[in-house]
Amino acid sequence: MMIVAMQDQATEKQVQDVIERMVELGFNVHRTTGSNQTILAGVGTPAHFDVVEFKVLHGVHDAYRISAPYKLAGRSFRPEGTQVAFPNGVVVGGQEVVIMAGPCSVESREQILLSAKLAAAAGAKFLRGGAYKPRSSPYSFQGMGVEGLKLLREVADQTGLLVVTEVMEISQIEPMVPYIDLFQVGARNMQNFNLLRELGHARTPVLMKRGIAATIEEVLLSAEYILSGGNYDLILCERGIRTYETYTRNTMDISAIPVLHKLTHLPVMADPSHGVGIRDLVPPLALAAVAAGADGLLMEMHPDPNKAMSDGAQSLYPEQLTKLVAQLRLLAPVVGRKVA
Amino acid sequence: MMIVAMQDQATEKQVQDVIERMVELGFNVHRTTGSNQTILAGVGTPAHFDVVEFKVLHGVHDAYRISAPYKLAGRSFRPEGTQVAFPNGVVVGGQEVVIMAGPCSVESREQILLSAKLAAAAGAKFLRGGAYKPRSSPYSFQGMGVEGLKLLREVADQTGLLVVTEVMEISQIEPMVPYIDLFQVGARNMQNFNLLRELGHARTPVLMKRGIAATIEEVLLSAEYILSGGNYDLILCERGIRTYETYTRNTMDISAIPVLHKLTHLPVMADPSHGVGIRDLVPPLALAAVAAGADGLLMEMHPDPNKAMSDGAQSLYPEQLTKLVAQLRLLAPVVGRKVA
Amino acid sequence: MMIVAMQDQATEKQVQDVIERMVELGFNVHRTTGSNQTILAGVGTPAHFDVVEFKVLHGVHDAYRISAPYKLAGRSFRPEGTQVAFPNGVVVGGQEVVIMAGPCSVESREQILLSAKLAAAAGAKFLRGGAYKPRSSPYSFQGMGVEGLKLLREVADQTGLLVVTEVMEISQIEPMVPYIDLFQVGARNMQNFNLLRELGHARTPVLMKRGIAATIEEVLLSAEYILSGGNYDLILCERGIRTYETYTRNTMDISAIPVLHKLTHLPVMADPSHGVGIRDLVPPLALAAVAAGADGLLMEMHPDPNKAMSDGAQSLYPEQLTKLVAQLRLLAPVVGRKVA
Amino acid sequence: MMIVAMQDQATEKQVQDVIERMVELGFNVHRTTGSNQTILAGVGTPAHFDVVEFKVLHGVHDAYRISAPYKLAGRSFRPEGTQVAFPNGVVVGGQEVVIMAGPCSVESREQILLSAKLAAAAGAKFLRGGAYKPRSSPYSFQGMGVEGLKLLREVADQTGLLVVTEVMEISQIEPMVPYIDLFQVGARNMQNFNLLRELGHARTPVLMKRGIAATIEEVLLSAEYILSGGNYDLILCERGIRTYETYTRNTMDISAIPVLHKLTHLPVMADPSHGVGIRDLVPPLALAAVAAGADGLLMEMHPDPNKAMSDGAQSLYPEQLTKLVAQLRLLAPVVGRKVA
Repeated sequence: MMIVAMQDQATEKQVQDVIERMVELGFNVHRTTGSNQTILAGVGTPAHFDVVEFKVLHGVHDAYRISAPYKLAGRSFRPEGTQVAFPNGVVVGGQEVVIMAGPCSVESREQILLSAKLAAAAGAKFLRGGAYKPRSSPYSFQGMGVEGLKLLREVADQTGLLVVTEVMEISQIEPMVPYIDLFQVGARNMQNFNLLRELGHARTPVLMKRGIAATIEEVLLSAEYILSGGNYDLILCERGIRTYETYTRNTMDISAIPVLHKLTHLPVMADPSHGVGIRDLVPPLALAAVAAGADGLLMEMHPDPNKAMSDGAQSLYPEQLTKLVAQLRLLAPVVGRKVA
Repeated sequence: MMIVAMQDQATEKQVQDVIERMVELGFNVHRTTGSNQTILAGVGTPAHFDVVEFKVLHGVHDAYRISAPYKLAGRSFRPEGTQVAFPNGVVVGGQEVVIMAGPCSVESREQILLSAKLAAAAGAKFLRGGAYKPRSSPYSFQGMGVEGLKLLREVADQTGLLVVTEVMEISQIEPMVPYIDLFQVGARNMQNFNLLRELGHARTPVLMKRGIAATIEEVLLSAEYILSGGNYDLILCERGIRTYETYTRNTMDISAIPVLHKLTHLPVMADPSHGVGIRDLVPPLALAAVAAGADGLLMEMHPDPNKAMSDGAQSLYPEQLTKLVAQLRLLAPVVGRKVA
Repeated sequence: MMIVAMQDQATEKQVQDVIERMVELGFNVHRTTGSNQTILAGVGTPAHFDVVEFKVLHGVHDAYRISAPYKLAGRSFRPEGTQVAFPNGVVVGGQEVVIMAGPCSVESREQILLSAKLAAAAGAKFLRGGAYKPRSSPYSFQGMGVEGLKLLREVADQTGLLVVTEVMEISQIEPMVPYIDLFQVGARNMQNFNLLRELGHARTPVLMKRGIAATIEEVLLSAEYILSGGNYDLILCERGIRTYETYTRNTMDISAIPVLHKLTHLPVMADPSHGVGIRDLVPPLALAAVAAGADGLLMEMHPDPNKAMSDGAQSLYPEQLTKLVAQLRLLAPVVGRKVA
Repeated sequence: MMIVAMQDQATEKQVQDVIERMVELGFNVHRTTGSNQTILAGVGTPAHFDVVEFKVLHGVHDAYRISAPYKLAGRSFRPEGTQVAFPNGVVVGGQEVVIMAGPCSVESREQILLSAKLAAAAGAKFLRGGAYKPRSSPYSFQGMGVEGLKLLREVADQTGLLVVTEVMEISQIEPMVPYIDLFQVGARNMQNFNLLRELGHARTPVLMKRGIAATIEEVLLSAEYILSGGNYDLILCERGIRTYETYTRNTMDISAIPVLHKLTHLPVMADPSHGVGIRDLVPPLALAAVAAGADGLLMEMHPDPNKAMSDGAQSLYPEQLTKLVAQLRLLAPVVGRKVA
């Protein structure tokens, strides 16, 4: 459905040209002629349709898309909400707020095993850790690759955790499947549509982070790519957007959490570590995210953050995580939730 | 204190020119000569000093201001934190989270009296309401002026509330004093330095909102204007910043709350109503703000929001405020606070 | 004129409530009932009317304001464009691209006289220079005040230039009138509506800069304040907006120049000095602004920028201005203009 | 090289911890002890090194990276500038401003052949056209794939043009090589580091667009990925960044053109079509980009924009391109360039 508002001075010829183009696209057109302005309402949902095209037609004042450009991701598709269930009984999108924690990168067996033990002890249900590391400088540490995946699986099994880690390329999907429980799509790949399409055909759940400059509508369009491939086990994740404020690494858009809950049936998590980029700011933002309705938290924690090979500055000390989860256990019930 | 890093290819003449300019400004200069780069550290705190000036001198790679450009607003000036106390015993910046609520504008005695009763019943300590309304369109309702101030005082006294309302001009300061307990400086006036300077000479507390595009450092520089005039009863307020996301009116920068608490001794409140601009998003953001450490909340509530003359869309229904305060009473203790 | 698109599941009761509210505001309502969605077109132009109010009504999917919220500022009010004429025959908004140049602040008779001579020699028609200086730090130089105004007038008369300088407060308007030819409203005051309203009653032309976070629509709403007071001698000025990019002081929105020319009849100038904040970037941006259709340029030039008391880093050397104007003289004819 | 400024109250133990960590990373440390603050200058260029790590160490006020995090991309690596030469003698980065034009997508032989003829007639040297189309909605047209590549080559050869088209995946690189002259990396892939690394090993030139939220430093870090693989035939392209202003699709950051010319030796082009997203704004922005020093322009032009399957609203009419190039031919000499 769309609406075109003609200019005051639009000629009848211009009005007819717009109507013709709308009909050509598959719209039924209803016309309202005001004393000095004509409005055209297009009813229907054509496949190819770019509202901006109408904004530049002669005689047009403005054009508006009424129906959302996504379908499967919309709240009305599943008003009751989506719950993503995992083998060991953990559910994201249910009453429980799920904690995912671990280091930025897998660095060694010793480091990731200790991380897993500390995460599990603190109350986390998932171990996070990067095997493939997309760093902005070609001279930084780039990850352990498949060796890292094996270590993640091994120590997660040992500690009763699930594994979430980032996928960066179509070619990585298949090799990753045996080792992981949840694909993470990073902010930089939120509009890598080829990757999203392939993940739509996977049978492993996906956690998709919001791009650093993505609007909420764009998040839902990207979700639609995955859903339209048949993979409904999808979790969204707010992780901060880029704004003019540089004190924090990004600006956590906490309001995106309730907004997404309103617009979509998909679970919504938060990643305060990347959202702020400074260790001591992670706990207050984690509490804020859950207070605003987050279904889970993804956080960086390192056994020795000052020695971390990447993102040490935003990684929690293990004792910070423990203290934070204790606070979350008290806070969650205030908003009708609980932390397992 | 400042640092100038010279370019690799900087000539000795260029280095000497920079040193000369630093000394001229009052710095003592310490020089580190690396194998291919020279660094100059300027020790001291000259009065007139713009670090950008150095960035454009010949041979300079970059220049950094080390000491914060504010003094009185810095946390180290009062490490224990500032508490702003009001006549009836209410304190902002102490253990209690203080609620300020009321309509966007004072519209009539009936409306503001009912608002005050509802706010008080819900647990608010302050009644807010605009008497002078800075609207972006000259054709919108512009406020009741001094008549509105009188009504605010009258109904606040009747209901045991304090009055907070916006001051927009130096000429309004004096007439407002008899009627109010707390001056509010709106986001658009955060860099109206003449107004800030005058408020620094006032003896009435001030609540200063963050500008829509103000950095955290700019908030503290503006605070410095008020403090340097001698008025230490100053409260800061995060109210959303302008970003590329347009679903919400602004993007609430929740991380600014803990950041400000780290950088300054001043109390920090939050205004989720202007931060999001949509009624149903106010409660989750209010909870988030307190979870992140806010010392108080400023919120719009109207007895009949759909009839409000301004900002109706973001005004809470009275019952929403009541329910929210009940939740806040449970949440505050999780972060070591309470709601009176 | 406005449009309300109801949700798919909206009840007839909800539709009726929205219609009722529209009629109450003064709209005539035309209804289009689609197979699964209802659209309401409101014809008319009520005085008090906030489209956001409709967005939060029950059953509403979205609401759109069709008619621009400004009237006098719109291009259709004066399709031929506004020309602002000055005593000595200079016109802004005509075929000539007008150059305004001078130091950030008036510092002394000697400095401002030399500035005026250099500006005039380079081809400028206006001398700029701040007498009241709104600085973000209370410890920076704050300007010479009325003494500075007198010096501006004196040296401008001596060199055949006109005077443009910033007004920051209502109380400054009257004292400034005798000394100046053009009031400048700075970016921080673009939404100081009380000041704008008073300038609307003045008989001296006004140059209004875009706020650092102002949308193009907000620029036009602010223009409306001045026009609706009866002062039609108004010039707009793009001067950079705040974005996430920090290499430059602001990001010059060059596209705002042709956009404003499309939407309004008012002349549009550009201030590349504040737009980029770095001397050597001013010439390329000045050329770009004129290539994109700017009606004039406002630039900082100082006889000795390294000694400037404010904004030295973005002030051109006199010889840079001379060279730039020579280039502008060649460039202007490419876009059908000339530099006097 | 890096600098750490300690807090006023930093203990000697904290200073020693920071020094130890700097030495551990490979820095030689020079210490300046002021009366109330200590500054540590680290000389050297360690491989693994994240300045944020230091910002969160105890006792640290702030930390600064002095040397740019890129090497090969820096201007000093090739002060004379890079020229990217193509088979038919066209050079990007030399005196000539190079025009690349064509439709958003290849839609059919007829459409692309006509586009090529029109582009060549207008003065373009490259034909652009997407074969793989990354659209934000999964329901939009997704491109003709390899069939489109063949058509591009065929019609380009017929009209004497070179081919530039977007590569979106590592797996597309090899199949594309036979058909194209210049790989285009789209804004969404500017931080797809795996793709960049592979393009670094290719022997075909690359045009890399700035990401929609990428800083200038990030552009250069991404360039470094390609350069460090050995491919020095790299062209950068400003194409608009995301800001709060929504009238235009993005905000063209014209100042990035001279800034990049200062920081890097690589040629810098501009894509005003994506920068503004509205046909009639493309010519003024194209003129502005060349006035600011752009080495070329990439623009969308369609034989019949209203029938375009994608991006029709921002595609020039053929006659608009012809007229624009005529203006560019006059403008280029003003800034010491020419249009072939």
